Amino acid sequence: MANEKKISFEVIKRLPRYYRYLGELKSNNITRISSKELSRRMNVTASQIRQDLNCFGGFGQQGYGYNVEDLHEAIGDILGLNNGHKTIIVGAGNLGRALANYKSFEKRGFKLVGIFDINNIKIGQNIAGLDVLDFNEAEKYIPDLAPDIAIITVPKEAAGSVAKKVISLGIKGLLNFSYTDIDVPDGVEIENVHLSDSLMTLSYKLEQQKKLNQ
Amino acid sequence: MANEKKISFEVIKRLPRYYRYLGELKSNNITRISSKELSRRMNVTASQIRQDLNCFGGFGQQGYGYNVEDLHEAIGDILGLNNGHKTIIVGAGNLGRALANYKSFEKRGFKLVGIFDINNIKIGQNIAGLDVLDFNEAEKYIPDLAPDIAIITVPKEAAGSVAKKVISLGIKGLLNFSYTDIDVPDGVEIENVHLSDSLMTLSYKLEQQKKLNQ
Repeated sequence: MANEKKISFEVIKRLPRYYRYLGELKSNNITRISSKELSRRMNVTASQIRQDLNCFGGFGQQGYGYNVEDLHEAIGDILGLNNGHKTIIVGAGNLGRALANYKSFEKRGFKLVGIFDINNIKIGQNIAGLDVLDFNEAEKYIPDLAPDIAIITVPKEAAGSVAKKVISLGIKGLLNFSYTDIDVPDGVEIENVHLSDSLMTLSYKLEQQKKLNQ
Repeated sequence: MANEKKISFEVIKRLPRYYRYLGELKSNNITRISSKELSRRMNVTASQIRQDLNCFGGFGQQGYGYNVEDLHEAIGDILGLNNGHKTIIVGAGNLGRALANYKSFEKRGFKLVGIFDINNIKIGQNIAGLDVLDFNEAEKYIPDLAPDIAIITVPKEAAGSVAKKVISLGIKGLLNFSYTDIDVPDGVEIENVHLSDSLMTLSYKLEQQKKLNQ
């Protein structure tokens, strides 16, 4: 897989979408699909699809199209989803609760193994089948839970110290919803999710519509 | 502004990030910044920044850098943020609540004017200073509230009919968090947010790390 390093970030960014669509096809018992049909459903050109999937060695067969299950599994492998990821959520506020109950995380191999907070009212509450644990005692729980990923949904003032703590306990992947940037050391990966960015993109599109109608 | 049409989607996607960073600089009373310094903070090359901002006419001045406030305002204009957007949330579950309390929406000019649900237990509850309204009576409320944008946080089974209803009442922009694709007519804009995509991208990065360490 030495050639994977050359794959552009733009292609990588599209893989989750392919994975989602193929998962939907699979659950609708569709076993194969042409790049043309996949293109229509995904609103991406067929040549783009062929180009993207060729980056990974090409899964299509002339005159047959793609085998949905094989392609789904292959992309899952590339994304590292097939072995699963144990995940914790730090911050049992509304967003933490929403994510804990978000069905599609588990469906994609992210198994929630712990929810943490420092608020005494929240500690001990049951969310999505798990009792909220005291983050001040993170050292006591995290080594046993052995999660790969921490989803951070605490206020931005606390985000840095939460990240530091979970990294010190061996967690290598952070999904950060706090409205701040977190510096992570080499060997630790972070994805920052800025919910307001999508609202701003929507606003841009509305602005363009307005200009068209003027 | 006729040349705006040529701006690539990739540039547009970066604008919210520029806007966020410049907003932070502004609140830290920083009045000007070089493309080099902006580049360091944003982890984008300086030439990328110059290229991106040139798309909109170029705001920089040789030897001076960018005027933070002017650039922030100019990008806000391009994004259509400076006039504000009245926004409603449909679906007062955990995610709806989290978004209603999300401070950075209001800071970016998205003013929450209504929260709707169809669950009798939720209707009348106060969230972020607003009483939850009955979505079955949307016709009664929405024309007066006159929102531009509806944020949809209902279960995916209901997302299509919610979208149809709000569009029929004149809403032109949808931010969809339901795990499903919604078809919208011409003249209506939609942004679909898939929270699991960022987890999948993170998983990919972790997988690459693992390979590096093998």
